[in-house]
Amino acid sequence: MRFAAFGEVMLRLSPPEYLLLDQTNELRMDYTGTGVNIMANLAQFGYRTSLVTVLPDNRLGQVAKSVIAKYGINTELLQFAHHHIGSYFAENGYGQRPTQVTYQNRHHSSFGVSSHEAYDFDAAVAVNDLIHICGISLSLTDETRSSAHELAKRAAEAGKKVCFDFNFRPSLNTEPNKLAFMKEQYEMILPYCDIVFGSTRDLTDLLQMQRTENEDELIRSFMETYQIEWFAGTKRISAGNQKQLQGFLYNRKEQAVSTSRELTILDRIGAGDAYAAGVLAGYADNWSLADTVEFAAMNAVLAHTIHGDVPLTTKEQVLTVLENPGIDLIR
Amino acid sequence: MRFAAFGEVMLRLSPPEYLLLDQTNELRMDYTGTGVNIMANLAQFGYRTSLVTVLPDNRLGQVAKSVIAKYGINTELLQFAHHHIGSYFAENGYGQRPTQVTYQNRHHSSFGVSSHEAYDFDAAVAVNDLIHICGISLSLTDETRSSAHELAKRAAEAGKKVCFDFNFRPSLNTEPNKLAFMKEQYEMILPYCDIVFGSTRDLTDLLQMQRTENEDELIRSFMETYQIEWFAGTKRISAGNQKQLQGFLYNRKEQAVSTSRELTILDRIGAGDAYAAGVLAGYADNWSLADTVEFAAMNAVLAHTIHGDVPLTTKEQVLTVLENPGIDLIR
Amino acid sequence: MRFAAFGEVMLRLSPPEYLLLDQTNELRMDYTGTGVNIMANLAQFGYRTSLVTVLPDNRLGQVAKSVIAKYGINTELLQFAHHHIGSYFAENGYGQRPTQVTYQNRHHSSFGVSSHEAYDFDAAVAVNDLIHICGISLSLTDETRSSAHELAKRAAEAGKKVCFDFNFRPSLNTEPNKLAFMKEQYEMILPYCDIVFGSTRDLTDLLQMQRTENEDELIRSFMETYQIEWFAGTKRISAGNQKQLQGFLYNRKEQAVSTSRELTILDRIGAGDAYAAGVLAGYADNWSLADTVEFAAMNAVLAHTIHGDVPLTTKEQVLTVLENPGIDLIR
Amino acid sequence: MRFAAFGEVMLRLSPPEYLLLDQTNELRMDYTGTGVNIMANLAQFGYRTSLVTVLPDNRLGQVAKSVIAKYGINTELLQFAHHHIGSYFAENGYGQRPTQVTYQNRHHSSFGVSSHEAYDFDAAVAVNDLIHICGISLSLTDETRSSAHELAKRAAEAGKKVCFDFNFRPSLNTEPNKLAFMKEQYEMILPYCDIVFGSTRDLTDLLQMQRTENEDELIRSFMETYQIEWFAGTKRISAGNQKQLQGFLYNRKEQAVSTSRELTILDRIGAGDAYAAGVLAGYADNWSLADTVEFAAMNAVLAHTIHGDVPLTTKEQVLTVLENPGIDLIR
Amino acid sequence: MRFAAFGEVMLRLSPPEYLLLDQTNELRMDYTGTGVNIMANLAQFGYRTSLVTVLPDNRLGQVAKSVIAKYGINTELLQFAHHHIGSYFAENGYGQRPTQVTYQNRHHSSFGVSSHEAYDFDAAVAVNDLIHICGISLSLTDETRSSAHELAKRAAEAGKKVCFDFNFRPSLNTEPNKLAFMKEQYEMILPYCDIVFGSTRDLTDLLQMQRTENEDELIRSFMETYQIEWFAGTKRISAGNQKQLQGFLYNRKEQAVSTSRELTILDRIGAGDAYAAGVLAGYADNWSLADTVEFAAMNAVLAHTIHGDVPLTTKEQVLTVLENPGIDLIR
Amino acid sequence: MRFAAFGEVMLRLSPPEYLLLDQTNELRMDYTGTGVNIMANLAQFGYRTSLVTVLPDNRLGQVAKSVIAKYGINTELLQFAHHHIGSYFAENGYGQRPTQVTYQNRHHSSFGVSSHEAYDFDAAVAVNDLIHICGISLSLTDETRSSAHELAKRAAEAGKKVCFDFNFRPSLNTEPNKLAFMKEQYEMILPYCDIVFGSTRDLTDLLQMQRTENEDELIRSFMETYQIEWFAGTKRISAGNQKQLQGFLYNRKEQAVSTSRELTILDRIGAGDAYAAGVLAGYADNWSLADTVEFAAMNAVLAHTIHGDVPLTTKEQVLTVLENPGIDLIR
Repeated sequence: MRFAAFGEVMLRLSPPEYLLLDQTNELRMDYTGTGVNIMANLAQFGYRTSLVTVLPDNRLGQVAKSVIAKYGINTELLQFAHHHIGSYFAENGYGQRPTQVTYQNRHHSSFGVSSHEAYDFDAAVAVNDLIHICGISLSLTDETRSSAHELAKRAAEAGKKVCFDFNFRPSLNTEPNKLAFMKEQYEMILPYCDIVFGSTRDLTDLLQMQRTENEDELIRSFMETYQIEWFAGTKRISAGNQKQLQGFLYNRKEQAVSTSRELTILDRIGAGDAYAAGVLAGYADNWSLADTVEFAAMNAVLAHTIHGDVPLTTKEQVLTVLENPGIDLIR
Repeated sequence: MRFAAFGEVMLRLSPPEYLLLDQTNELRMDYTGTGVNIMANLAQFGYRTSLVTVLPDNRLGQVAKSVIAKYGINTELLQFAHHHIGSYFAENGYGQRPTQVTYQNRHHSSFGVSSHEAYDFDAAVAVNDLIHICGISLSLTDETRSSAHELAKRAAEAGKKVCFDFNFRPSLNTEPNKLAFMKEQYEMILPYCDIVFGSTRDLTDLLQMQRTENEDELIRSFMETYQIEWFAGTKRISAGNQKQLQGFLYNRKEQAVSTSRELTILDRIGAGDAYAAGVLAGYADNWSLADTVEFAAMNAVLAHTIHGDVPLTTKEQVLTVLENPGIDLIR
Repeated sequence: MRFAAFGEVMLRLSPPEYLLLDQTNELRMDYTGTGVNIMANLAQFGYRTSLVTVLPDNRLGQVAKSVIAKYGINTELLQFAHHHIGSYFAENGYGQRPTQVTYQNRHHSSFGVSSHEAYDFDAAVAVNDLIHICGISLSLTDETRSSAHELAKRAAEAGKKVCFDFNFRPSLNTEPNKLAFMKEQYEMILPYCDIVFGSTRDLTDLLQMQRTENEDELIRSFMETYQIEWFAGTKRISAGNQKQLQGFLYNRKEQAVSTSRELTILDRIGAGDAYAAGVLAGYADNWSLADTVEFAAMNAVLAHTIHGDVPLTTKEQVLTVLENPGIDLIR
Repeated sequence: MRFAAFGEVMLRLSPPEYLLLDQTNELRMDYTGTGVNIMANLAQFGYRTSLVTVLPDNRLGQVAKSVIAKYGINTELLQFAHHHIGSYFAENGYGQRPTQVTYQNRHHSSFGVSSHEAYDFDAAVAVNDLIHICGISLSLTDETRSSAHELAKRAAEAGKKVCFDFNFRPSLNTEPNKLAFMKEQYEMILPYCDIVFGSTRDLTDLLQMQRTENEDELIRSFMETYQIEWFAGTKRISAGNQKQLQGFLYNRKEQAVSTSRELTILDRIGAGDAYAAGVLAGYADNWSLADTVEFAAMNAVLAHTIHGDVPLTTKEQVLTVLENPGIDLIR
Repeated sequence: MRFAAFGEVMLRLSPPEYLLLDQTNELRMDYTGTGVNIMANLAQFGYRTSLVTVLPDNRLGQVAKSVIAKYGINTELLQFAHHHIGSYFAENGYGQRPTQVTYQNRHHSSFGVSSHEAYDFDAAVAVNDLIHICGISLSLTDETRSSAHELAKRAAEAGKKVCFDFNFRPSLNTEPNKLAFMKEQYEMILPYCDIVFGSTRDLTDLLQMQRTENEDELIRSFMETYQIEWFAGTKRISAGNQKQLQGFLYNRKEQAVSTSRELTILDRIGAGDAYAAGVLAGYADNWSLADTVEFAAMNAVLAHTIHGDVPLTTKEQVLTVLENPGIDLIR
Repeated sequence: MRFAAFGEVMLRLSPPEYLLLDQTNELRMDYTGTGVNIMANLAQFGYRTSLVTVLPDNRLGQVAKSVIAKYGINTELLQFAHHHIGSYFAENGYGQRPTQVTYQNRHHSSFGVSSHEAYDFDAAVAVNDLIHICGISLSLTDETRSSAHELAKRAAEAGKKVCFDFNFRPSLNTEPNKLAFMKEQYEMILPYCDIVFGSTRDLTDLLQMQRTENEDELIRSFMETYQIEWFAGTKRISAGNQKQLQGFLYNRKEQAVSTSRELTILDRIGAGDAYAAGVLAGYADNWSLADTVEFAAMNAVLAHTIHGDVPLTTKEQVLTVLENPGIDLIR
């Protein structure tokens, strides 16, 4: 199975060693974004993956391309235009101190200002079996919104699988009209989608489906409405100071939840994308729901032990840790 | 309320990443000291603060001035004389390995050899509403001792608040005569003081007040004797491997203790100064004792999650963490 | 003499040790901009300086404020609004390899989108004796353009000195209409100006004054037209592999050129601002043109030996090097 | 008591801050090996120690010698020949992510290709009271195997103590004949040995002694067979997420186990060598078994809190932590 | 034109900032080798390139693959076997202090021990138009020697261009028989070659052609003997302290020499490969000899201003510097 | 020949990459001092060397000891007392910007406050053939002064060679009485000395010998007066921007000057000690004056190409560079 993702590439700039921006003039630079993260992880797993995005037509775009190639992602669908890349500063939290993310201008990035004419969507659809679209594209600009809709439509019409993740942040869409507008956007894209990542909260708060005691019912109703093949996501559980993560996964007939896994967190960003990559691996290889959800959840656990947003795990590594609980040294 | 602090500025030199001094030739350089720490934190909280000290009249003094300005502290009361700054090396501990502090010559520092004639105490008193004096000045040299007494006296006579912290280390004053001498020094300064930071151990071991089962009684007796307005401090609790911190605070009528907070510690130095800054913020803004002690204790908890001695927290950050337990990512 | 500067604060991000962006994920972060550079240098020289700008109302703005304070610049005229700071990446050149600067979106920065209502220009004018305005403000956005005009006008009307530097880059303004428009902008602001930094090329290419063999005549004609008090700039001379820098300075009666100084360059950006700061020091202290131009040129030479754009020289240091040619170690 | 160790010096190359090799081009370089680790630790404890090995006759050998001298180990028995040093890359694990060790060619290292003629074993035996031999020498090459046997024999014949650690990794010796061959090698060297470090698993899996419920019986039978004076080792206990370490120690009459100590781990490699160094200190100074085992176990616990394989603890530090449970700051 | 190179990938490990290995435990890790260098540079120039080599089947091989992809080189012809990668330590010289290179075991590397069966040479030949073979393969091991011969033969037979560089180091081959053996090896491969990089010294010292005053004659005789299409190389000229580089290039009819270029050297390794890449670009695009040799020489000059062996120049950059002598800042 | 040096060990703290102390909080820590530098260099040359000093009895003293051992210097004559080590900050200059050295309190260092009773001078004299004493000891404190005199006397009386370097800085001794006092101190120690490093300026300005056109006469008169066996030093020559270094050397009969060598300087401190080490190597091995002075001058030239004060050159390296002018890469 060949995968492509449509989404923004961003610069992540973080001070080293849990320092604040006031405490150092050293930054670590990474290239990231939901699409990058998932395609990189799937490439590490051995799949062929591509990225569909617009990078700035300058040194930063060239370097971004190098890094994307380094992750094993095919770079042939990349476009180069305009001169700005979105960025965010991440001051890594420690203990009770939260990680503080500060976004810099995303709306005027090369990705943000590019409409669907900038891309070769037909090539993307022709070559790949599954197209991943990140929900953030629906929130960003008119251009990214229409590009997302257009790509979803073309992929679906070509009989390719469309994978979509909600990535909806209510805090960014607080005006009532804004919420109604966003609901409409999501409702427009969902009919094209086969695999969806999200939470019950996305269903109730964004799609305004009826809240219910029975989560299964809610999810199955959602899957029915939009003819969704797989629906998946994670839950975080706090037991005192100790955090845990659990994955869930539904197909049209069955459902599975993973073991609840203790988290030891080096980097607080990026586990959701690792979970998604794990689920897509299971989808590609026809694993059982149970195997898939355990694999994906452990992949997310491991992503939290790796610096940066990009989960550089391999299949072998995830399986080794699943099969050897407590293993802490391999030689 | 405008604050000034009298105290030594020191260089803190620490190897990176929990390395020992034998393992690297890289050091991180910070400028620190109780006065710097508290004034910097209050400046971050939005108050106007000044530092009253003598820095070396060379490149190190110039750089120290820059860093003090960077913390948002007013630099107009700084003096420049002599050529030496006190320093300490901190090898950061990990797990059972203690942080190892090695002091370098403090007695001959520009601060240590400067008597009160070196300062413009009248300007310091005129401009500010509260003067903080660190007890370590009473231990250091004859010059710092007499300066501390002189400043406390002038501030009190001018009707300004005097804040004092015991900072007494019995291990540094083991000769019997030394202890008697130190007791006398503390007894001389306390009548000028309004707000005092310390522990019941300071009262019994240094001031040699009667030990008692009832801590409240002991503290109230101390406050009565010296007409202290606020007395505050922290306690550390070890529950197995897990450490906790709790703050307490007395005024002449009431008292409050904070929630006992679990500690996740990045840097083992500096939480006491963060607690003091938190209490002074509550004092300045007339918060209730209960609100003050919760804020101050959480500020101390967060100080342990920040590299170095200087607590770079903001009011908003402390309140966010108090109001959103378990929050680990802000974007 | 008290100085204020109006201009953008930018993030400069550079890889260490002459590495390319492809070769490392480490960046050094500096806060810079013509206004920052000149005010920081004048503060190092002992003058009181302020910065008039809009910083983003987020962590990056707070950190920028700290750094500006660290440079000894007064921060009371800073405003905080919007969420974006302009930035540029500098890959430091070596030998024949040029330094490569890549700008990121400046037009939508907090400074770029702020009109003059965002500032307290009256306070800026009231407190200071000389206002520096960078010509780049005339190129950036409608908002920065109108702010520059407004501030120049108010300062001139209040009888304060206005200092302006051309900073015109023909390569950025290649459309014919654009050039005519820019000419108009410059002609509008020059009547308010007393001290101007530029080159004869600015006079001929931008203002379209008549080219002439006799540079003096051209400059004197320009100074006459706009009633300019001082006009100054630098020239670069290449003798084979060796580069040299020479400063010139005109008042209404006299003129002076500095010794031509060999350059040994650590950082290829920022010498022009150092030259300007040197000239302004001579202006403030009524030095002779000859003394001023030697000081300013040596200051520019030293700026090239310091990392980053901000010239952290002191008066004593510049004079020491002028008076002790070849000195390479001070202890 | 004077100690010498026979064993390989290796380069350990690790990325900083828990990064993967894909994420950085920075490496930390350390010189390590069981012999280095134990001799360095004993030198820190105040004993005179030597290393008996062959280093490459090039810059890497020279630097290795410097580092060995830095650890306080005598360098007079070092030999320099050939041009290769063994190395391994350690990607430090975090949480559930295991530390990943990747070995580079050890068989062709200067140590690996040197036979016993390369050494001055007589000098080593003459000067020292105890010779430590690492079991890995028996697995490496024919040359290291015969050197180990020869040295053990000469030391025993000279009446010196021989200390041996099993260091047997079944995973490296999976072919049946290989195991039989290795068993033979171990059986050949054990008769020369006085102090042995290992586990019951070494006795059953390698020496193929009878498995039994009663570990004591098994160990005593082993000690009897080979006339072993002291047998010692550690056990790891996992209680949920929390790991613990416990040491055991047998002499011909008695036995002792240490308190089970919680582990907070900075570096997952090297605790076994720290335990061995602690036991040898007790042996040298005639401490009781109980004191020895507590000291050695705490030394191993502290080794896990120090970067790299070399345990840079001092006797005073170990005792301070034993005597002051929970101490986290020394000044 | 599509290019492939056959050659070893090595780890280059260098201390930062001109430090010696004794002075730091920090190393910078790069992946390099003649094939990597030339293919990476050609990829930067916009050509499609591949690498034909064997990498270790472990973490180091995986990371090497990522880095090769980052350079824009196609990774489909890479093989993974065995567990060792060759490495060298480079202590960067400064002024009169030479760069000191220390090689670690290359003979037992995955590349060194792999014979031609390990490769898919037919695929390499089928897809590409020009195969580059590095002369060092003839010196390394029997396996690399026979692989080089085999590949050259198959490429020639398939009508593809074969490019070969002498890379002969007399100091490594001092025994007389060794030299005769090496001469034979080179004579065996040259008949398959179309483009050759070398020096007249290679022709006289290795091939033992007659020394002559007239270099042209010697070179033309060599080209005639082996039917070489292009022969190229560089000369170093020292004028006092100043070093210069000049390129030369012969085809069957003409010849050209470049301007002699002053060198300002950041890294003393890798300029020869940059020169080769420049010549191959001219060959691929049918530039004149004169244009080619100027481009290639300037590319070599720029390679000396970039850290590491891999020349990360672009065509645009080389042309910009050629066309704008003295340009030192691009923005 | 076995060497010992008496002198202070200091911490050198320098920001990386030519940064100013205002620009970074990173420092590089080195242990240095004239005695350390010369003994380390002689150890690199293959001689047995020792250091006679007092180090602080704390972590800094322990680490200093490790570093001294790393340099190959014997540590048995080290003493540990008091708690302070002298330090200096070196901001490395670049081009016209001078290196700025800022000393921290040396007078109260463990070395500065230790009188001759603190040392085992008899052991130092017994074991070694030549004792080096640095003139700075005569300027520092009464304790170091009397220790220097005592050690010179005992060494001379035991028939051992005494080597002394003037190291006199007129700028530090500007009061007339101070100069007279210092003259007396130098006159007291010189009669015990055999080898002296200095300049004619030391003879005229400090010893107040008659100035003369004829330097030889002056030097021979000095050597006669104090029965000096060898007198040596260096001269710096500036030819425009280019600096050169030349060594001179006198014995009782002959004299020699070295080739004047161009300097390319990475670190501006420490070449004098390298020159001294080179001369002492020639003295120990009975080289001709001409060979000695060439070797010593090139050693000084190379010391300027190495970071820090400690010249880590080897004999082989110096000879290689002497014999292969222009060599810039060794592999």
